[in-house]
Amino acid sequence: MTRAGTVGTVNVGLLGCGNVGAALVELLAERRDAIAARTGIMLDVTRVAVRDVAKHRSVTPPPGVLTDSAADVVKDPDVEIVVELIGGLEPARELVLDALAAGKPVVTGNKELLATAGAELFDAAGKAGVDLLFEAAVGGGIPLIRPLRESLAGERVERVMGIVNGTTNYILTRMTEAGASYQEALAEAQQLGYAEADPTADVEGHDAAAKAAILAGIAFGVKVTDADVHREGVSGVTATDIAYAGRLGYLVKLLAIAEMVDGQVAVRVHPVMIPREHPLAAVRESFNAVFVEGAAVGELMFYGRGAGGRPSASAVLGDLIDAAVNLRRGAHAPIGTLASARLRPIDELSSQFYLSIEVADRPGVLAAVAGVFGEHDVSIRSMEQVGLGDEAELVFITHTAAERAMQATIAGLDALEVVDRVGSLIRVVGPE
Amino acid sequence: MTRAGTVGTVNVGLLGCGNVGAALVELLAERRDAIAARTGIMLDVTRVAVRDVAKHRSVTPPPGVLTDSAADVVKDPDVEIVVELIGGLEPARELVLDALAAGKPVVTGNKELLATAGAELFDAAGKAGVDLLFEAAVGGGIPLIRPLRESLAGERVERVMGIVNGTTNYILTRMTEAGASYQEALAEAQQLGYAEADPTADVEGHDAAAKAAILAGIAFGVKVTDADVHREGVSGVTATDIAYAGRLGYLVKLLAIAEMVDGQVAVRVHPVMIPREHPLAAVRESFNAVFVEGAAVGELMFYGRGAGGRPSASAVLGDLIDAAVNLRRGAHAPIGTLASARLRPIDELSSQFYLSIEVADRPGVLAAVAGVFGEHDVSIRSMEQVGLGDEAELVFITHTAAERAMQATIAGLDALEVVDRVGSLIRVVGPE
Repeated sequence: MTRAGTVGTVNVGLLGCGNVGAALVELLAERRDAIAARTGIMLDVTRVAVRDVAKHRSVTPPPGVLTDSAADVVKDPDVEIVVELIGGLEPARELVLDALAAGKPVVTGNKELLATAGAELFDAAGKAGVDLLFEAAVGGGIPLIRPLRESLAGERVERVMGIVNGTTNYILTRMTEAGASYQEALAEAQQLGYAEADPTADVEGHDAAAKAAILAGIAFGVKVTDADVHREGVSGVTATDIAYAGRLGYLVKLLAIAEMVDGQVAVRVHPVMIPREHPLAAVRESFNAVFVEGAAVGELMFYGRGAGGRPSASAVLGDLIDAAVNLRRGAHAPIGTLASARLRPIDELSSQFYLSIEVADRPGVLAAVAGVFGEHDVSIRSMEQVGLGDEAELVFITHTAAERAMQATIAGLDALEVVDRVGSLIRVVGPE
Repeated sequence: MTRAGTVGTVNVGLLGCGNVGAALVELLAERRDAIAARTGIMLDVTRVAVRDVAKHRSVTPPPGVLTDSAADVVKDPDVEIVVELIGGLEPARELVLDALAAGKPVVTGNKELLATAGAELFDAAGKAGVDLLFEAAVGGGIPLIRPLRESLAGERVERVMGIVNGTTNYILTRMTEAGASYQEALAEAQQLGYAEADPTADVEGHDAAAKAAILAGIAFGVKVTDADVHREGVSGVTATDIAYAGRLGYLVKLLAIAEMVDGQVAVRVHPVMIPREHPLAAVRESFNAVFVEGAAVGELMFYGRGAGGRPSASAVLGDLIDAAVNLRRGAHAPIGTLASARLRPIDELSSQFYLSIEVADRPGVLAAVAGVFGEHDVSIRSMEQVGLGDEAELVFITHTAAERAMQATIAGLDALEVVDRVGSLIRVVGPE
């Protein structure tokens, strides 16, 4: 084992050796010499904390490397940089804070941690004057956090819209391209290992909401936790919604959106209809992408694999090299602080809307329904009846309307005797 | 004027105040306070070199700022960072070398300079231990160079394919979507200001070749100049090619490609047929995008505005902030060196090919033509006759074949009495 402080070697302590951690160890073995040639730094993983030391592993590390005490790894005076890949809030939060307090740079891919305790961690890293890097936390292998923080440091970002959950994007892609129902597409995603047996965290948008909170913090410098993010998932999206979207030139995508609206930051996750020509519409299957609109730079998009051991490990390794180079130079990337600010709630936003309602199939129904839209000043851009008799549905796209007015319209429609059920409400992005 | 060395202020000397330079001055005025709040650094443009000091400008700088001597700006002891936006090889090269030798970081958007003298500049920056940053040189406003250099520092890049010229992408988009001829689409691009009166640099691929050379250097660390890049433009692409591509599920794009083939780097610019589902296929009109394949990270794409004053100025500003922060910390980004290496010439590559030939419309022609393919071991995947009589064309797509075998096939076809003319040869990317 190389001693800490030897010129040219940086000792790394790894917390967690699951999917991403194991891929990182493998990648480091493959790339260590190339990295040393490029940067003059040999990265040595000298300590690895795992839950079960006895568990069989594809790679057997030298004796003394594995431990079941993550705290020991953080405290080890030989460990100069801590890579946290345990996931979850605790004990990850405490371990990361301990490492930062000890002046050790931290690389993490932990989205829950950043979405819950990001501001606290940013402050701790700033006070300690060491790096806190987390490229892998959003968009897996896609270089995204670094471009937002550094390349766009001078840019006034106006909006960030991301496909940040591969499971739901796979489901919506199959519904769109193969005409699958939501249940069929979900079952297929589960068979392929894209979706968990309990898919709630993905399909109800919890995973995307955590990533939205992180993106909003980076793009706008404000404190946002996942609890602040308005959240709607994809489980209510129907084949009718997708088909109608297609006929009008739209695709349905689950988007994480953070934008500046009248000086306030609004953050939300919900299904969106986007025009077929929009760059996000071409993001298929389990791929991720983040679309950024800036005042000077215009439209940007970053696309790639949002999950998976090797893509995420690639992002962790990029951060690790950066942290090691900075450490040897006595420098660190400026992290900034996250300011407290009022976030703009969704009922203060406006949008175009798609709405489907199940109705009785008889004369006069449309007049009654249209009357409710009119009462609330929601103007209808297009309408179509889908199905007949008991299957009759009306699908609408509105002009831009206030979210509150749309919610009042839905309540009014719900109360109509001729309306059997109000179905999907999907916001529409794009030109009117 | 703030004095150099005052804590918190960094004095910038700007060489060239055209489209991008003027946008940079404007952007700095808008964003100076926000940048200072974020980084603790006030960026002051204290000297600006222009060709004609007397020319009317939308912004009038304070007296003493404008000069017609770029050398004076570089030498000015108050100027701490030099931004070179003159373009072209000389005097830009000399000025940048002088700045680096004086220990001043340089930010440039000059693709000709980097594609011609990149290795020399990298060495000079390395020796001086100062930053040489050039995000704006490829892909305009798209953060691309920094992610490749830093985020992917640990990644083994296998291939980079870019739509790096907006003019030709606009032309091909109009040919594809509006059925325009090449001449019509070019005229439209000229009317919109996307193409110059003499469009040679764009349509014959010179601009893209310079960018390909820069990308190859960054991605693979080898010395490549624009003269090393095999280059074919779009002026030979016909409506027939585009239509046939479309029927088979392909789009035609002009790509800059740098890839590792059997341990050697191959770099080229030519039209390519890519599958409609490929992320690059969704890059429309004058947008740019660079698609990267890495061993661990898989597929990535970076998309945005490849040209224009404000997008390019945004990239320059990101670099400028980075250089200023590094300067105040006494650090700089590791630039590495470009190694001399044999580049793999195009006739040692393999590909699938699309080929169109004008033929006499009579029995036996296909047998003669197919015979020539067979002689050279080029296997045909699909064939179609387009048009009749004097207008008859045969269009082929081959299985993967050696470039040399394909060139020999073309020579053989040219010699056939029944072949009036060999038309377009377009390489095909994607699964067979």
